[in-house]
Amino acid sequence: LIMGLFEKHKEFLQRAITALHERTFFAAYPENPSKTIYGENADEEGQDFFKKSLGQKFQELNQDRAESWIGDEESPYLNKSLDISYPGFSSSFLLEQAKSSLGIWKKKSPEERAGILVESLEGVKKRFFDIAYATMHTTGQGYMMAFQASGPHGADRALEAIAAGYEELKRFPASASWIKPMGKYEVHLEKSWVAEPKGVSLVIGCSTFPTWNSMPGLYASLITGNPVIVKPHPKAILPMAIVVAEIQKVLKAEGLPLEICQMAPDRVDNPITKKLAESPDVQLVDYTGGPQFGDYIEGLKGKVTFSEKTGVNSVILHSADDISKVVQNLSFSISLYSGQMCTAPQNIFVSKDGILTPEGNVSAEKFSNLLAENVSALVDNPKAGPFVLGAIQSPNTVSRISGFESGNSVLKEREIENPIFKNARTLSPRVVLMDTSEKSKFSEELFGPLAMVIETENIEESIELAGQLAAEHGAITCGAYSTDENIKNQIKDRMASCFTPVSFNLTGNIYLNQHAAFSDFHVTGGNPSGNASFTNPEFVIKRFVWVGFREPRK
Amino acid sequence: LIMGLFEKHKEFLQRAITALHERTFFAAYPENPSKTIYGENADEEGQDFFKKSLGQKFQELNQDRAESWIGDEESPYLNKSLDISYPGFSSSFLLEQAKSSLGIWKKKSPEERAGILVESLEGVKKRFFDIAYATMHTTGQGYMMAFQASGPHGADRALEAIAAGYEELKRFPASASWIKPMGKYEVHLEKSWVAEPKGVSLVIGCSTFPTWNSMPGLYASLITGNPVIVKPHPKAILPMAIVVAEIQKVLKAEGLPLEICQMAPDRVDNPITKKLAESPDVQLVDYTGGPQFGDYIEGLKGKVTFSEKTGVNSVILHSADDISKVVQNLSFSISLYSGQMCTAPQNIFVSKDGILTPEGNVSAEKFSNLLAENVSALVDNPKAGPFVLGAIQSPNTVSRISGFESGNSVLKEREIENPIFKNARTLSPRVVLMDTSEKSKFSEELFGPLAMVIETENIEESIELAGQLAAEHGAITCGAYSTDENIKNQIKDRMASCFTPVSFNLTGNIYLNQHAAFSDFHVTGGNPSGNASFTNPEFVIKRFVWVGFREPRK
Repeated sequence: LIMGLFEKHKEFLQRAITALHERTFFAAYPENPSKTIYGENADEEGQDFFKKSLGQKFQELNQDRAESWIGDEESPYLNKSLDISYPGFSSSFLLEQAKSSLGIWKKKSPEERAGILVESLEGVKKRFFDIAYATMHTTGQGYMMAFQASGPHGADRALEAIAAGYEELKRFPASASWIKPMGKYEVHLEKSWVAEPKGVSLVIGCSTFPTWNSMPGLYASLITGNPVIVKPHPKAILPMAIVVAEIQKVLKAEGLPLEICQMAPDRVDNPITKKLAESPDVQLVDYTGGPQFGDYIEGLKGKVTFSEKTGVNSVILHSADDISKVVQNLSFSISLYSGQMCTAPQNIFVSKDGILTPEGNVSAEKFSNLLAENVSALVDNPKAGPFVLGAIQSPNTVSRISGFESGNSVLKEREIENPIFKNARTLSPRVVLMDTSEKSKFSEELFGPLAMVIETENIEESIELAGQLAAEHGAITCGAYSTDENIKNQIKDRMASCFTPVSFNLTGNIYLNQHAAFSDFHVTGGNPSGNASFTNPEFVIKRFVWVGFREPRK
Repeated sequence: LIMGLFEKHKEFLQRAITALHERTFFAAYPENPSKTIYGENADEEGQDFFKKSLGQKFQELNQDRAESWIGDEESPYLNKSLDISYPGFSSSFLLEQAKSSLGIWKKKSPEERAGILVESLEGVKKRFFDIAYATMHTTGQGYMMAFQASGPHGADRALEAIAAGYEELKRFPASASWIKPMGKYEVHLEKSWVAEPKGVSLVIGCSTFPTWNSMPGLYASLITGNPVIVKPHPKAILPMAIVVAEIQKVLKAEGLPLEICQMAPDRVDNPITKKLAESPDVQLVDYTGGPQFGDYIEGLKGKVTFSEKTGVNSVILHSADDISKVVQNLSFSISLYSGQMCTAPQNIFVSKDGILTPEGNVSAEKFSNLLAENVSALVDNPKAGPFVLGAIQSPNTVSRISGFESGNSVLKEREIENPIFKNARTLSPRVVLMDTSEKSKFSEELFGPLAMVIETENIEESIELAGQLAAEHGAITCGAYSTDENIKNQIKDRMASCFTPVSFNLTGNIYLNQHAAFSDFHVTGGNPSGNASFTNPEFVIKRFVWVGFREPRK
């Protein structure tokens, strides 16, 4: 039966492996939430699911020995508690359960595990609209982003991790005859190898991208044989609860222990993350979140950690054929989900010479005004603004941006009324103009809708500042606009040296915030933003160990 | 010219890559020091080289701005100083030099770097006999081991690292067109990727296997674009000085800065290792040596470290068809280089039931006596003993073994006269019999010629102790003898869970001490013995970062 699942998904998996190596466009799960793709009633059913979940116990997790029922989620759109509760367990119980399942899970072949995991993604696919509404009402993402990022894009990243893991597990032969010529005779050893999983894996989620950032680590650990405990952010449990429920559903159907993949919800006022992370039983930790807790996680001894922490993402403006297209693109980039993306640009560097364009040079001040105008037009467009901005996940983000006092404010942040959710917590981007004398102000991530246009001495200083900030404070992405090949090469060299990917001259409907599965490596390590490394081979290889056996031929 | 070197070695490299994946027998460099292979006078020239080096400055390193000339080596065979001096530099000078060469080296293509590095191994091959005598007179290894381990086996491991690195660097396309269908139009991005090296690499050598343990990290860092500083053990500089000189020779011929690969000798009384290792300029550290310093290296923040520290290697004796062959094999294993191998067995577990054989059960006491007899016969054989034992590298090893007072001594350690080197520091193995009440005594690595036969309650306890010791104190290898498939599977499962490879039923001329390049993964991580991981993909992947660039098609 289990090999049946592998047979069922073999071609799909092979296409994913091929995509991973071609790095051309590949989308396993359609990102368009259309009725023709997902069914006439899929969206309504998702809405219904969400409404019916409110105020209830989440009963899908099959964790029937719950020690308590806990929940702490609030909708940034409804501005009230979801009042959904989940089965809660002590960390020691969860760890014992996970350990008890390790022996069974690791004995499954890569084929069996791959079959089960891809099957679970097929189940997740049927829940994309459930997950979309769950994501909206925990993270504050707009509907389209909530659908795409938490649904198909998250599933793509998960499939990518399965594909990378499967390939790595099959990379070396399971056995080989080793025959050493010794002159008049030979030594003949029969050798075999197993890919031994590291052990119990802990996946710690964040409040803004609960599935997109957690599914890769979850599936990477599972494909390589490690049982996983998913510890979601207490403010964004529901999206991952659905994913874990779908995995458990397949495990149950295959007669496997559900403890292979457990959900570990907690509350802000009673967190269990440290108890889990510090346990010697936990060998692997995937973490997404703030840098302070991330540094703590990375500092845990004897564990393999994957992190996505923070980034001070820069945009370097040098020259452009059409400055209006640049302004449009960046306006959208900084407005999208109100800057609550780890890939959102924050610092926009323009030198004193201004941006070179066919119509003359555009100064930093002029550019900041253009940006302010464009952002205003976008956020005030009632058919676009509220949906691009979404809502603000945490009240802290509002106070952080409102309390920011440096530079000249070119555009004030505002609440933008959402036509559907009157109580939504919203904030449009602040645009600020400053010079490099205020370096300490732009040298940290100011998570939320804030863009700083920073005037530098010259393009060299712009490049150097972008590089320095990435090297010292981390960067997940960088944008650059230049029509000059020499400048572009300078930017490539500098940003490569601090391990930061660069998007050049993006205009139109593609944004530097977006990293595509099967093509863009994401947070590959080397600067302080983290080492999550979706999905290069390191992301899966570090989750298991090759162990060899050998014996003379009989 | 440089691509010429790649063309020259392309097929050889391809064979190495194929071997890495087949994991069948492959030896790129012949291990037989015969005149027909290496030339009529090769051995004599090696002896001459060594003799002429004594008391001299080592002039091959092209480091003409030496701040001092330093050396601290002593021959365990001659029991006197070699009085060879090497160019010494401050750590800050070495680091500045290394950093200055990073930009040039990383811009070389994988093909160019591979060509240069394989060419350097061809140079090293011509020096195998020089290296053999240099190794003998620093480590105390016997001639045959010194030739094989430091010469062909070290070069094989280096080639393996080049092959693994080259494959990984070529694993993803340098560029791709990413075309996303968007309904009525499409988004077309041109993408490219670079494998950005982590930075300056430090390779810290050990006193017993100066090239075998250092060449993999050296070549792995170089193939992936990182300049390397080689910090040999102050008591074993000459073997690696020859290797580095051969690399510099090729770099010079290709017009590249020699600072891409520098030698950093120091003295025991004035070490520079910590200064180098702690520098924020150093991103990668390869370390072989004791566990205390190894833990310090692994604890350095923000660095990628590869370590081979220590191991408490166990042998589990359950059953055998011919006990005399088992005794012979293990006698050789514990005598080889007087137990100064990280892969030497230390603890031999025999249950109270004894070892099951066709002639009846062999008790732990009986087995310890057989072992003592066989070791005595081996070490007292003047044609074999002195050459298998070699000499003792460090006087500390002699005092450690002489001072060991636990258990019942079944065979006392002795000096064994070496017919060629009358002053050689030698020690034959001590064999001790004890029970598990003395667990604390056999729970640490007692580096040197000491074998403990330990009586356990039953086979389950034997297996569990071997596993526990590996998990808690580290193990690099494990030996097991059993004719029972169930027992073998139990041993496989237990030792896999603590990430320790197992050699079953070795008899004849193959020993558990020997890990073969292109086939046996070595110290792949997961237990406290280290994570050197020669050579699985992790060993090279962690030395560089994929950085992507993307731009809309014009």
